[in-house]
Amino acid sequence: MKNYQDDVRVGLLGFGTVGQGLVQGINLQIDNISSRLGAPLKIQRALVQDANKKRVVGLPELTTNARDILEDPDIDIVVEVMGGEQPAYDYIKQALGQRKQVVTANKLLLAQHGPELKALAQRNGKGLLYEASVLGGIPILRTIQHGLCGDKVEEVKGIFNGTTNFILTRMVELGEDYPTALRLAQEAGYAEAEPTMDVSGLDAACKLVILCRECFDLEFHLKDVTMSGIEHLDQRQITLEKRQGRIPKLIACAKPQNGEIQVGVQWLPETDLLSRVSGVQNALSLKTLLAGELFWSGPGAGGLATGGAVLGDIMEAAERVLTERDTVFQQTGK
Amino acid sequence: MKNYQDDVRVGLLGFGTVGQGLVQGINLQIDNISSRLGAPLKIQRALVQDANKKRVVGLPELTTNARDILEDPDIDIVVEVMGGEQPAYDYIKQALGQRKQVVTANKLLLAQHGPELKALAQRNGKGLLYEASVLGGIPILRTIQHGLCGDKVEEVKGIFNGTTNFILTRMVELGEDYPTALRLAQEAGYAEAEPTMDVSGLDAACKLVILCRECFDLEFHLKDVTMSGIEHLDQRQITLEKRQGRIPKLIACAKPQNGEIQVGVQWLPETDLLSRVSGVQNALSLKTLLAGELFWSGPGAGGLATGGAVLGDIMEAAERVLTERDTVFQQTGK
Repeated sequence: MKNYQDDVRVGLLGFGTVGQGLVQGINLQIDNISSRLGAPLKIQRALVQDANKKRVVGLPELTTNARDILEDPDIDIVVEVMGGEQPAYDYIKQALGQRKQVVTANKLLLAQHGPELKALAQRNGKGLLYEASVLGGIPILRTIQHGLCGDKVEEVKGIFNGTTNFILTRMVELGEDYPTALRLAQEAGYAEAEPTMDVSGLDAACKLVILCRECFDLEFHLKDVTMSGIEHLDQRQITLEKRQGRIPKLIACAKPQNGEIQVGVQWLPETDLLSRVSGVQNALSLKTLLAGELFWSGPGAGGLATGGAVLGDIMEAAERVLTERDTVFQQTGK
Repeated sequence: MKNYQDDVRVGLLGFGTVGQGLVQGINLQIDNISSRLGAPLKIQRALVQDANKKRVVGLPELTTNARDILEDPDIDIVVEVMGGEQPAYDYIKQALGQRKQVVTANKLLLAQHGPELKALAQRNGKGLLYEASVLGGIPILRTIQHGLCGDKVEEVKGIFNGTTNFILTRMVELGEDYPTALRLAQEAGYAEAEPTMDVSGLDAACKLVILCRECFDLEFHLKDVTMSGIEHLDQRQITLEKRQGRIPKLIACAKPQNGEIQVGVQWLPETDLLSRVSGVQNALSLKTLLAGELFWSGPGAGGLATGGAVLGDIMEAAERVLTERDTVFQQTGK
């Protein structure tokens, strides 16, 4: 039996931008993290597709076999940062079945299977944490759970996709047409070669569904979201609207009391703080019962920012691991 | 011995704007709160100076004797919303001595005696919570503790005082001179008859000190803050700077690695989101190691917004009360 002073051990499923950002974030403040936790935090192993691929950040051990992580009894926390629906879905179910704490940044998976996976985690007495799946570096889920625990969210509105905001910012500020701005976003690494998930509004819709479940304590599914993207915006329309002082933004919003939950382009006046959020930034405005209007903005993506959000979840999961060890120790003396 | 299903009982010290906002906030969502807590939350009694004064919100019981709250064994949580240094300081010490959980919204008291009171709370194994003392309805302390627990704050910058921001907004947008804008802030109930605490920068400095202690894990005192106010701003200077695209804001900022901690007027370009925060709103920008730049804005004052922040602290304190009862129950069977 491990005791309280033992390492808390983490296994990574995936080691791309977010995984490497996470390891970099841990390395930048390793002493700080261990002293805050009261135990050393160790990345034990990472699952990759090609163990020989060159990576910016080194790791103690890479594996191409998921069982080396999911079935290793020494690993306390499984962190899924591979993205996509499969095999992430199966892996998370297996990890929970093996009684691991689970952290994921996978918005598509959560939008589609969040409630089922949360129920499974609860049945197994484990945490399923996913701060990084929504708004990258803005710690909004924890703010809703902890910061607003005495309040009630009534409306959600925000810019949830940095890629489209980057494209729209270029179209508005530099007068570029959509294909040019998209190509530049791809060259800058903000848009995928196949950009549909971002430009169609699907990425924003996934985040909206996850956020709405947290805010409103109701069931929400992707199919509930009325969704449109930015593909059909043209420069002529932008020029006309700009003369009226309005700027296009891809806005995700939900007012459940009106049955409204949608993603689409809105033309915002310059007095709206959301209209001032430019480039790959994300932003969120909440209307609450007591506080009224609250506004957040920050980085919606990026390895280090998203890795930092994952790290926040790992810290919370690690505290659960230590509390459990403590309880077992008190009960059994080992 | 009380059991888990018993009420969690709250005593209020003070029943002004924030106290009444708190009671109103609880009444608006009483079922919700009890179901989230798993036990009914009850405001047992409030300390007032004049029990016969007419109030907007009714209360079960008012008292003019602090001992009716501080020494009542049925009261689990003492909430100090009277403001000022004394007698709040003595009352909080007595409440902690009586092993109550304590919640306070008192920035002056915390800026001056925060570390001593926190140490006393810790020695007594009780919580001292003070989300409402900084930035009113913006839940920033809990965000730093929970949301950013995997990150490290490096710089703090913000608009921490709604009264001066209201005055500056009028001076910039309507061309009013300082005495006129101040008088209007007083008439609107945003400024006190004796406005020094706000307009000198002292109120913002108190909040900066409290926030810096949370962010940087270092000692900070009011005397460390280089402080100036808005009293000497004139309309001629504003007009000149506006032509250059710059707007005056009373900015609190801290960069501890440079030994910089100050409150004073800064001229911000219109591209800075802080320059867009108008009226009695507050705002905060944090620079962190991993997330980079994060921005918040929201209501800095107001009974309901600040009462909501107090309520968040009460919810957290109530959970501690219930956990303690649970532990006692397990150990003694009663």
